[in-house]
Amino acid sequence: MAAAPVTDPPARTGRGGRPRDPSRDDVIRAAILRLLGEVGYGALTMDAVAAEAGVGKATIYRRWRTKQDLVIDTVSELNRAWTLDADTGSLEGDLRQLVHRMVEMMASPVGAATRSLLAAMQHEPALIDAFREGPMAIWRRAFAEMWARAQARGEVGPGMTQSIPAEAATALFVQRWLVTREPVDAAYADAVLERVVLPLVRQETAGSRAG
Amino acid sequence: MAAAPVTDPPARTGRGGRPRDPSRDDVIRAAILRLLGEVGYGALTMDAVAAEAGVGKATIYRRWRTKQDLVIDTVSELNRAWTLDADTGSLEGDLRQLVHRMVEMMASPVGAATRSLLAAMQHEPALIDAFREGPMAIWRRAFAEMWARAQARGEVGPGMTQSIPAEAATALFVQRWLVTREPVDAAYADAVLERVVLPLVRQETAGSRAG
Repeated sequence: MAAAPVTDPPARTGRGGRPRDPSRDDVIRAAILRLLGEVGYGALTMDAVAAEAGVGKATIYRRWRTKQDLVIDTVSELNRAWTLDADTGSLEGDLRQLVHRMVEMMASPVGAATRSLLAAMQHEPALIDAFREGPMAIWRRAFAEMWARAQARGEVGPGMTQSIPAEAATALFVQRWLVTREPVDAAYADAVLERVVLPLVRQETAGSRAG
Repeated sequence: MAAAPVTDPPARTGRGGRPRDPSRDDVIRAAILRLLGEVGYGALTMDAVAAEAGVGKATIYRRWRTKQDLVIDTVSELNRAWTLDADTGSLEGDLRQLVHRMVEMMASPVGAATRSLLAAMQHEPALIDAFREGPMAIWRRAFAEMWARAQARGEVGPGMTQSIPAEAATALFVQRWLVTREPVDAAYADAVLERVVLPLVRQETAGSRAG
């Protein structure tokens, strides 16, 4: 992991429901990112976030009701930045870009914070649904939209997005990131694409054309 | 995960270095299994293990120097039971059996304890190496021996065991088990074998024969 360059995520675009003071939001998000990496979700408190961000606790509570809301929203928003503008015009281009972005995210402080949340899920069942509807949904949607674009271009059949082979597009990275801790870098991303993901896509496409 | 039947692991065989009182060892292991599932690695103490197992702390310290030794040894030994006698006579038979055993382990209390250790790794770097040399090495060795047998039978080329496609034999299960929490059961195991693992093995074999 040390070998992977930590690149800046692409600039975030605006969206509805954006708070009035985005710069203060960014300061709070940066504080959470540091605290999750350092102490983890369990030991993170609203007091520590307020102190680390240099804002009053009332400022935080005005926008987020609970620690879980605050952390899930922050980690989701930070992950979202890596998934924007993913349309390159071809499935192979889209896959390559999304997988490289995911690998960069994993090696970044956002990856450490996301992994910290995944660890906390083990003993806080309420986090499982929150993670699924937050950070995980961000990546699911990015991949689902990629498969939908590929289907519209005639590159894959309609069953790809929910298919088991589609799970392979992320699974090998997740396994190294969470279990084996072997390098997850750009070279590994390319190797997984060439030897696992693209062959499985070709096989599924051939199968759906033959069927 | 609830749908997966929790079957008993195969009986353990003896090995060198076995303690004099294996039944007491088993009681201590069962206590750790319960505590890891309930409170997690961080909150587990030698006192709690001794109380839960109904043995004196001296008994535990005679055999294990530290909490880390005790927990890693226990989780390794419990995982080992699922990997024994894996030779079925063919690669497809071996793969099917190992993958089904892994899926049963994930749905069992041993799986919950293993996942608890993986979560603890996030904030205890010393656990990363211990996990790699303990529970992870058990499964790595079982899969490596499976690829070696397949190579000896002429079913795959020599490069399979360390290959990236070989990582797919476990990665999809790990992703559901640790991240998406979608069902990991026997039907899923068969589907992953048919649509991901066996096609990749055939592709690698064809490639190594052509090359």
